[in-house]
Amino acid sequence: MRLSQYFLPTLKETPSEAQIASHRLMLRAGMINQTTSGIYTWLPLGELVLKRIDQIVAEEQDRIGCFRITMPTIQPAHLWQESGRYDDYGKEMLRIKDRHDREMLYGPTHEEVVTDVVRQYVSSYRQLPLCLYQIHWKFRDEIRPRFGVMRGREFYMKDAYSFDVDAASARVSYEKMYNAYLRTFARLGIKAVPMRADSGAIGGDLSHEFHVVADTGESAVYYDKTFESITEADYSMEKLSKLYAVSDEKHDPDTCPISGDQLISRRGIEVGHIFYFGTKYSKSMNLKVTGEDGKPIYPEMGSYGIGVSRLVAAIIESSHDEHGIIWPEQVAPFRVGLIDAKNNSETQAISTQLYEKFKNAGVSVLYDDRDERAGIKFSDIDLIGLPWQVIIGGKTLTNGTVEVKNRSTGAREDLSLDEVLTKFL
Amino acid sequence: MRLSQYFLPTLKETPSEAQIASHRLMLRAGMINQTTSGIYTWLPLGELVLKRIDQIVAEEQDRIGCFRITMPTIQPAHLWQESGRYDDYGKEMLRIKDRHDREMLYGPTHEEVVTDVVRQYVSSYRQLPLCLYQIHWKFRDEIRPRFGVMRGREFYMKDAYSFDVDAASARVSYEKMYNAYLRTFARLGIKAVPMRADSGAIGGDLSHEFHVVADTGESAVYYDKTFESITEADYSMEKLSKLYAVSDEKHDPDTCPISGDQLISRRGIEVGHIFYFGTKYSKSMNLKVTGEDGKPIYPEMGSYGIGVSRLVAAIIESSHDEHGIIWPEQVAPFRVGLIDAKNNSETQAISTQLYEKFKNAGVSVLYDDRDERAGIKFSDIDLIGLPWQVIIGGKTLTNGTVEVKNRSTGAREDLSLDEVLTKFL
Repeated sequence: MRLSQYFLPTLKETPSEAQIASHRLMLRAGMINQTTSGIYTWLPLGELVLKRIDQIVAEEQDRIGCFRITMPTIQPAHLWQESGRYDDYGKEMLRIKDRHDREMLYGPTHEEVVTDVVRQYVSSYRQLPLCLYQIHWKFRDEIRPRFGVMRGREFYMKDAYSFDVDAASARVSYEKMYNAYLRTFARLGIKAVPMRADSGAIGGDLSHEFHVVADTGESAVYYDKTFESITEADYSMEKLSKLYAVSDEKHDPDTCPISGDQLISRRGIEVGHIFYFGTKYSKSMNLKVTGEDGKPIYPEMGSYGIGVSRLVAAIIESSHDEHGIIWPEQVAPFRVGLIDAKNNSETQAISTQLYEKFKNAGVSVLYDDRDERAGIKFSDIDLIGLPWQVIIGGKTLTNGTVEVKNRSTGAREDLSLDEVLTKFL
Repeated sequence: MRLSQYFLPTLKETPSEAQIASHRLMLRAGMINQTTSGIYTWLPLGELVLKRIDQIVAEEQDRIGCFRITMPTIQPAHLWQESGRYDDYGKEMLRIKDRHDREMLYGPTHEEVVTDVVRQYVSSYRQLPLCLYQIHWKFRDEIRPRFGVMRGREFYMKDAYSFDVDAASARVSYEKMYNAYLRTFARLGIKAVPMRADSGAIGGDLSHEFHVVADTGESAVYYDKTFESITEADYSMEKLSKLYAVSDEKHDPDTCPISGDQLISRRGIEVGHIFYFGTKYSKSMNLKVTGEDGKPIYPEMGSYGIGVSRLVAAIIESSHDEHGIIWPEQVAPFRVGLIDAKNNSETQAISTQLYEKFKNAGVSVLYDDRDERAGIKFSDIDLIGLPWQVIIGGKTLTNGTVEVKNRSTGAREDLSLDEVLTKFL
């Protein structure tokens, strides 16, 4: 992409309404625009990141045998009256009347709709286990939306729902999802620690929150140091759930089993939450299947959320510096920023040639071909946080080398034009 | 995908509420489930088709230099009060009050939001032309939703918006989009004819509808026979727009310039609509840029829609038979249906081996490994309309061949296990 032709409205000034780093940086990097309180338009750069996260989240759901669907945003109230949550949910639910005066709502979550789908088609234990997920927009009418997309009203979320014949099988589904979450967050380039949680309004007896560790996190979190060094080989819920890890409302220094260096105290941002809640919805909404013995069974259910739009902000909170965002390679909107730092006919020719070579080789590249001072280009490219910067400048003309800067470490190296192409293949 | 583990709830009975073929077939093939009037859940098979169309539509928008964004579904009413459409729009607009009693609406279209975005960032003629698009869910509160997703209330749509400094440049943007639409529909495997149209409520002076030709279409369409044979080489609006092509409300047999064999009379389903409407929104919403001469300019705008969820139904209307759907290869949920027609240990071993080979080779395949009669498997696979069927049966055991059936032509051929793999690479 040539920056001169792209729609990347970066801001020089820090918007006064933005209190946290991710909100400031997303506005300044031209990723989002506020349409109204807590409701945002995702501009091209933000859209690219959102879609990269969407794809990784989806691949990990597919891998454990969940099937992607799309449920409607607008739901009929009667399903929530059936489950008993319509009156309980309170003012965060956006309630709507359609032209025929029927009570509708903008879905804040989809247990009711998915249970309604499954009860229409699933009648035998042989059709279970079943897991369905969507990645879709939801609405919660926060009384005081703030922190940009971190606590917005309209937000993008992955929500999955599992159905099993009994509690033992439901636990297997839950564990699969627990491990899928660990893999998902690792692939996104972030450290997320699973913490024992209360299951709250959804009810039930097994629940974990996944918190991204970031200095600017909303809540204090306490966890075993072992979490700092887990790798894919350790993704076993049985083992990991024995390690201490809780957020502040569950932490009690007096009863905490670990201490000293072993107890890490940081701040965290909740980006995922998984629940096992048994037969709450299958019973209230009369989802029944015939068991192996011919007797009816209410399936055991779980639900599993990842805040996809919130993740964009959480990744930035955990990965930025005073100059701007530092994208992990896996979610970066472009992999390479190519900068013509001289804007003369010679550097322009070299830059354009390299740009074409990158494109032909399938390297995702943003080419800053604008007629702007080098200083502006450098600060913009630092701001939007692409993992690699390739700088065509004076040395290119004198030595035939280009400078390659790693945005995360700041390390620079000089490479020939051939070497730089090979580096990114 | 193994069908025994998939969520593909096909129906044997024809649902009584479905009046048209696409609605019947989408329900029977387990693609959609009605959540409430005019509002559907997209089940896994439908979701796959929706995403395939999404991708092709997006690629063709990207190719002409439009940038993908996502605007919110929930919009503040004040933007529509500014443009003057809030009171005009009528009851199709779903109007909402949030918890603070602010007037909001579920977007039926996004001219206001996109104009609001652009006026915040674009201030110079040098930033134009600009084209932004999204593929997103919209809501129109149809008084009588019917025909499944063909005329639903919540629907998935591509909407693009162009901004230009003058009418000549706006016409270039319009033509680019016209050609992109021809390419998009051709890639989707359907014949769509561009027809001169009134621009209606949106106003303006240049507008085309794109109609998919299908016997069950909602409106009569009349067009020059030349459209039957156009290829990519003919995608020039200047030439094509001189050919006669209108839907019934604009057709007048007395003044129609062509007749006889040259005039084709069919039925059509509108799947795209493009408008050039000048400065209607830039003026009412005060989007101004500085021109080359330093004077302010109101940008000339156009908007361009494709009904993505409606396209799923339109493709089925134009491509099905008495046995079920016939997917064009480009949008098929899976390319190959692999059928074990015998369910014995030998055919099972061969089928499973071939399934693994297809998967490893990246061939998208649905493997019917269910313990069901061959007749049920054959009718299900015809119903869901995968382009190719590969049948493992008696001949496989006696001759070592598999039968390959083309769903569209019905042609069958016997191939060896090696040949069948090569065929789909």
